Amino acid sequence: MNWIEYMVSITEILGTVAFSVSGAMTAIRKKMDILGVVVLGVVTAVGGGIIRDLLLGITPPAAFQNPVYVAWATVTALLAFVLARHTWSEKNRHLFELLLNLVDSLGLGLFAVIGVRTAIDCGYGENGFLSIFVGVLTGVGGGMLRDTMAGEVPKIFRKRIYALAALAGAMVYYYTADRVISSVGALWAAAFLVVVIRVLAAHFEWDLPRVK
Amino acid sequence: MNWIEYMVSITEILGTVAFSVSGAMTAIRKKMDILGVVVLGVVTAVGGGIIRDLLLGITPPAAFQNPVYVAWATVTALLAFVLARHTWSEKNRHLFELLLNLVDSLGLGLFAVIGVRTAIDCGYGENGFLSIFVGVLTGVGGGMLRDTMAGEVPKIFRKRIYALAALAGAMVYYYTADRVISSVGALWAAAFLVVVIRVLAAHFEWDLPRVK
Amino acid sequence: MNWIEYMVSITEILGTVAFSVSGAMTAIRKKMDILGVVVLGVVTAVGGGIIRDLLLGITPPAAFQNPVYVAWATVTALLAFVLARHTWSEKNRHLFELLLNLVDSLGLGLFAVIGVRTAIDCGYGENGFLSIFVGVLTGVGGGMLRDTMAGEVPKIFRKRIYALAALAGAMVYYYTADRVISSVGALWAAAFLVVVIRVLAAHFEWDLPRVK
Repeated sequence: MNWIEYMVSITEILGTVAFSVSGAMTAIRKKMDILGVVVLGVVTAVGGGIIRDLLLGITPPAAFQNPVYVAWATVTALLAFVLARHTWSEKNRHLFELLLNLVDSLGLGLFAVIGVRTAIDCGYGENGFLSIFVGVLTGVGGGMLRDTMAGEVPKIFRKRIYALAALAGAMVYYYTADRVISSVGALWAAAFLVVVIRVLAAHFEWDLPRVK
Repeated sequence: MNWIEYMVSITEILGTVAFSVSGAMTAIRKKMDILGVVVLGVVTAVGGGIIRDLLLGITPPAAFQNPVYVAWATVTALLAFVLARHTWSEKNRHLFELLLNLVDSLGLGLFAVIGVRTAIDCGYGENGFLSIFVGVLTGVGGGMLRDTMAGEVPKIFRKRIYALAALAGAMVYYYTADRVISSVGALWAAAFLVVVIRVLAAHFEWDLPRVK
Repeated sequence: MNWIEYMVSITEILGTVAFSVSGAMTAIRKKMDILGVVVLGVVTAVGGGIIRDLLLGITPPAAFQNPVYVAWATVTALLAFVLARHTWSEKNRHLFELLLNLVDSLGLGLFAVIGVRTAIDCGYGENGFLSIFVGVLTGVGGGMLRDTMAGEVPKIFRKRIYALAALAGAMVYYYTADRVISSVGALWAAAFLVVVIRVLAAHFEWDLPRVK
């Protein structure tokens, strides 16, 4: 395993952990029991990657080949459950929502970038549209499954510029990695950009036009 | 590209536009912002084709290989948004629903037929069951994703003979194309049949039995 | 077709029938018409198998190759509809729920085991994690589609130890088939175990901890 593969692995684990926390927190908010918390954590964490692998024709998907992703997601969701049990109260609901938004944005950014990377590694690097589109779907996939299964309209339709943030991250990674800066630098820059866009959008309550 | 491939392409673009309008209109009715309108338009427009390609083992799906579908869906959804902004009022809600039903039926018919065509082109033409089943799923897939993501029970369970219309179109295409009439003639006849069945069902409020 | 293949086939048909009944009953409870009942029955019955085949790279999925599954599911759903029409009343609602829970558990057990079996037959037997994970997803897949499409939060998040029961069945099958007991013995023992766990959990109202 070379340096880039190693960093991509680390990133994938980080994204898995972030999305598992977001799945677990959603389940906790929905008053699910400990098993529901673990299942929603795992589904959110590995869902995007499974969608990515199916689209690219990688079967069985990586999450099935190697237990490391499910293991990290399970442990993370259990930890989130234990922590929430000891600290949760209606008073810190606002803080809870803020944290959920943050880990969800981090997962979104990391997985969008990894989606692009995987498409390039599969030999589709020439096709920028394909690579970026796969990246966006990898990023939003886990969260979409999480929200649909929790009985909510996916964040991608409710939250400010959610899809645009994923698109921006995927494009930045695709157009800078190995061209402008190193692959690893681009990876972190793009993921960081997604989080920044999402935080700014939430903080300033950026609003897009809608039909009245 | 020969004559049939050309007509299939045109049909696919038409179906994409029809389904994108239906996705955009659903999003507008749900008071989503402009980005939500575009995302739901694109998901509805390319969803059925992606499901079809995954079922037939075509990876990455056509919608990822060639940006033309996403581009048409995006432009269409944006246009629908702009038009709705200037013309929408509670007074024309009924007209709005009528139009939504029409474009949804058109997308249903066109994609059901294209699903059968793609299955045949992949060499499964001998297996009528497979070809027709793939056609039905291609037709209903985009709308199912649209409704599920918008937090509604899919039309296939609520609307009169929705699935039967798709089935009829897929069967007519499968059993007439290249046997009774030309492929292109069958394509349009079958798609037109689906729209007619849906319009008649809506107009006469055809009701199927249910358990009281 | 040898003895084991024959038993696996029988099991798959049984699971198809059980899940079709559960899908049909859910649709009846939701006051869908006869077509909605058939569609939800078929989706529930073949959904898990389609997910399994896509994950394992078997395209087109078995349910598309061979009409036998859709045929059984259709006939079963029609029968359930006719029966419910003649016997349904608010008085036997409790009995109805009980029966729904039972057929759902049976489908869960049978499909979880068949999922493991299919993964082994595809040559992934060495990878226990993969085989068991595919089994669990095959078991819960049909029910998840059913509940999501009926506009409910999937049972896997609401019902006591639903996912654990599927996991237990998949593990028992994987670790006993051809090692401790015969493949067919393991198949029935594991499926039976899932039903027993689910029935006990429902009867004694086993509760798992949750965050208050």
